[in-house]
Amino acid sequence: MEIIEQLNWRYAAKAMNGERIPEEKIGRILEAARLAPSSNGLQPFEIIAISNRELKEKISPAAFNQPQITGCSHLLVFAAWDQYTSERIDGFIAHTAKERGGDPERLERHRQSLLNNFGRMDKDQGYAHAARQAYLSLGVTIVAAAAEGVDGTPMEGFDQEQLDAILGLKQKGLRSAVIIALGYRDTEKDWLVNLKKVRKHREQFVTELN
Amino acid sequence: MEIIEQLNWRYAAKAMNGERIPEEKIGRILEAARLAPSSNGLQPFEIIAISNRELKEKISPAAFNQPQITGCSHLLVFAAWDQYTSERIDGFIAHTAKERGGDPERLERHRQSLLNNFGRMDKDQGYAHAARQAYLSLGVTIVAAAAEGVDGTPMEGFDQEQLDAILGLKQKGLRSAVIIALGYRDTEKDWLVNLKKVRKHREQFVTELN
Repeated sequence: MEIIEQLNWRYAAKAMNGERIPEEKIGRILEAARLAPSSNGLQPFEIIAISNRELKEKISPAAFNQPQITGCSHLLVFAAWDQYTSERIDGFIAHTAKERGGDPERLERHRQSLLNNFGRMDKDQGYAHAARQAYLSLGVTIVAAAAEGVDGTPMEGFDQEQLDAILGLKQKGLRSAVIIALGYRDTEKDWLVNLKKVRKHREQFVTELN
Repeated sequence: MEIIEQLNWRYAAKAMNGERIPEEKIGRILEAARLAPSSNGLQPFEIIAISNRELKEKISPAAFNQPQITGCSHLLVFAAWDQYTSERIDGFIAHTAKERGGDPERLERHRQSLLNNFGRMDKDQGYAHAARQAYLSLGVTIVAAAAEGVDGTPMEGFDQEQLDAILGLKQKGLRSAVIIALGYRDTEKDWLVNLKKVRKHREQFVTELN
């Protein structure tokens, strides 16, 4: 199935049937999320992948009891860095040096340039920037899920502080930016399943300057 | 080619060879961007797709003369709504009603709920939220380009106000959030082409709670 068909097949399922996603499929979906590009390659976010039933039930009220939380197979929490710090940038440079090698002087110049760029951001700006990178990876994740025949419902409707507290994210310097429920649509219980997908028409969405 | 291979094949090309992307390919890439989901389906952004050579040259200084701007085939500017307004929400509801039909009372309740949710956001919050949706679509776009064998270099390094002025975005209530250069890598001129892709290791990126 091609990507356009996959994107037309998918929709934000409002009810899921509880079926578990096979390990190899969830593995490929998470691998796609990991391979997504990010600003300067920093990957300023992590994913918490939750299939534990009790934990999903605990999270449910923090997401206003939307049924996908407990009906999904895996709930992915995209948790963005709460700020850019010199420790995080140093860690990134050290990891790059280890993985890719490179001239130490050049790496040091790169480190200084990142410190300059990101050191200027205050905490809110840093988190906002990191959250955008998480959304880019979420877009990749959605396509990867559809390619596996897995439904994905991205969700912003949750209480960030409550979710962060349940997962202990604050202590890790993370904030939940967005979540996605991955699983299988419940075609009998989902009011949305047969409704037409609505998007802006092409001419409202794209301006071509040739 | 599967999505994991496509994501491993792609990288942020630093030099492009000027070759033009065939119409059917760019058409499918833009269609994927259009089909990307967004918060409440609002699609609070548009894409300006620029292949015009003079315009790309005019934009180049606003992007610090990075060579992908003129070396690419199509420069896509993801331009997000500068704020959520009642006119925009009314337009979305009218479009949904026309495309999908539905009970007028239910549509009116939906409209009021959107006005409540988005009316509370100040201008900066609204733009920040809209920009995140654009990044999600950018993620989808990157996969769609790779699936077509097209390189895509997402770029944040540009002067937003200058670019907005060149494209007349402010008058349309839009702000450029992020851009992507689509085209073909110049394997002889690109210093990055043969370097290893660096990503966090899986265990640094994903925490599984089963």
